[in-house]
Amino acid sequence: MCRICRGTAISVGKKVYGRWMQPTFVFDSPQLGENIGAAARGMRNFGLDRMRLVSPRDGWPNPKAFAAASGAGMVLANAGIFDDLETALGEFQRVYATTARRRELTKQVMTPKAAMVEARELMKRGVSVAVLFGSERAGLENKSISFASAVISVPAIPEFSSLNLAQCALLVGYEWRLSEEIAVEPVAISEVDEANVLEKAALADKYAEALKETGFFDTAQNEEGKRINLRNLFLRHDFTVSEVKTLHGIRRFLSVRRHRT
Amino acid sequence: MCRICRGTAISVGKKVYGRWMQPTFVFDSPQLGENIGAAARGMRNFGLDRMRLVSPRDGWPNPKAFAAASGAGMVLANAGIFDDLETALGEFQRVYATTARRRELTKQVMTPKAAMVEARELMKRGVSVAVLFGSERAGLENKSISFASAVISVPAIPEFSSLNLAQCALLVGYEWRLSEEIAVEPVAISEVDEANVLEKAALADKYAEALKETGFFDTAQNEEGKRINLRNLFLRHDFTVSEVKTLHGIRRFLSVRRHRT
Repeated sequence: MCRICRGTAISVGKKVYGRWMQPTFVFDSPQLGENIGAAARGMRNFGLDRMRLVSPRDGWPNPKAFAAASGAGMVLANAGIFDDLETALGEFQRVYATTARRRELTKQVMTPKAAMVEARELMKRGVSVAVLFGSERAGLENKSISFASAVISVPAIPEFSSLNLAQCALLVGYEWRLSEEIAVEPVAISEVDEANVLEKAALADKYAEALKETGFFDTAQNEEGKRINLRNLFLRHDFTVSEVKTLHGIRRFLSVRRHRT
Repeated sequence: MCRICRGTAISVGKKVYGRWMQPTFVFDSPQLGENIGAAARGMRNFGLDRMRLVSPRDGWPNPKAFAAASGAGMVLANAGIFDDLETALGEFQRVYATTARRRELTKQVMTPKAAMVEARELMKRGVSVAVLFGSERAGLENKSISFASAVISVPAIPEFSSLNLAQCALLVGYEWRLSEEIAVEPVAISEVDEANVLEKAALADKYAEALKETGFFDTAQNEEGKRINLRNLFLRHDFTVSEVKTLHGIRRFLSVRRHRT
C-alpha cells in the first residue's frame, strides 16, 4: 500500500502496474459541502476514489458533504485535507486544471476526453496525474493554474459556460471511465522520471530568488505577475528529474560565479 | 412559435430547421428542487432549454430549484408542468429512458453518446425526441420505461451505478452537445506561437556561451557532451516564442549583473 496515493501495485498477468492507477481530483478552496459530496458521488460512479481538498471553506469533516455523497462516503472519509495547494499537488507529475474562462496563459487547452485519454496513457507509463478544480465562486486563480501542465475546458455553450463544481468533476470522471475502452495497449516506453510539481515549483522559486537580486522584478507590482510567469514556464513542461537538475546547475553556475567575482 | 415545444422554426441560410431542434428532457416525479435546478443548469450549459416536469413532489414553482439553477432560471420558468407522464410524452416520436438498473424489458440499451448521435440524426429528419428521467428514489418504473423506444445506460461502475438525477441529465446533455460536429472538432488551443528549432537552438547556444565563462564545462572533453545536453534540454520542449524570450531574459539578468559587479 502506498502511503501517498493509498493505491497498491496491481499485477495483471506478468505485468505489474504502478501505484498511479487513477487520477487524483484536487479541489482548491471548495465552498459548499453539498458540492464536495456530489463530486465524490460522481467520482465513485466512475470508479474514482482519490480526492484531495485544499482549505474547504466550511471546515472538515462537513456533514453536508457526507449527506450529498449518498453511498460514496468512503471517498470523503479517505480524502486528503491540505492547507495549501502546492503541498496538495506536490508529488504529481502531470496536472490538468479545469477552467471555463479564457486565459491569457499559454497552456494547452484540452477537451475532457482528450485529457483523460492522455492521462490514462501517461499513468500506464508510471506518471502521476491530478485534475485540479477551482472554487465555486471564482474558479481557479491564475496562480493556481500555474501549477498545471494543461487546461481542461468543457465544451459548454459560450453564453453559459460556467459548470457547477460537482458536475465538472462528474464529466471528467465520465471521460476517464470512457477512456478505458478506447485506451490502447501500453507500448514499451523507456522509464520516465518526470519531475513532479514540487520539484518544478522549487526550481521556479530558486530562479525567482536568484533573479530578485538582479533587478529582474523591477517593481513590486510587477513581481507578482513575473513570478507567476516563471512558475508557468517551469511547471508547464514535462521536465525530467535530470533536466531539473541541469536547470538548477545552470542557475547555480550563472549566479554563484557572480558572487565569486 | 409552436405551442407544444415553444420552439420556433429557424432559418439558417436557405435551410429551415423544424421545431425539433433539440431533445426535451422529461423528469418523472422528481423529488428535490435542488436536483431540478441543477439539472436545468446542466442542460443550459449544453444549450438545452426544453424541460418538462411530471408531478414534482414538492409542488411548482419550487424556490429551491430556482436557487440551484443559478443563471438557468429561464429553463425552469419555461418548463412544462404535467400531471401524468403519458401526456408529457404525448407528441414525441422517439423517447429514450435513462436507467442504471438492468431491466427485464426487451429494449435496445444505448450509451449516452450513441443515443444522442442517433437523436441528432433523427431530429434532422423531423423526428421529435424526448429523454426521460426517473425520480431520485426509484429511478424509472417499468411502466414508465414502457413508453420508451430505447434505454440509455450510463457506463458507471457496476458496484456503484446509481447516478444523481441532475448528473445523469448533465451527461446526456454533454453528449448531445458533443454530437454536434462543430462542438467536437476544434480541440480548442489557445493562441500558441511555438518557437521553432532555430530559435530554440539559439537559446541553447546563448546559454552555453554564458556558462562557458563560469566553468560549467569543466573539461574540453566534457564540454561536447554538456553542450548536447543543453540542446536537448531546450529543443525537446515546446517552448513558445514568449517563453524563449523569458529564458533569454533570465540568462541576461543572471549574467549581465555578474559583469556589472
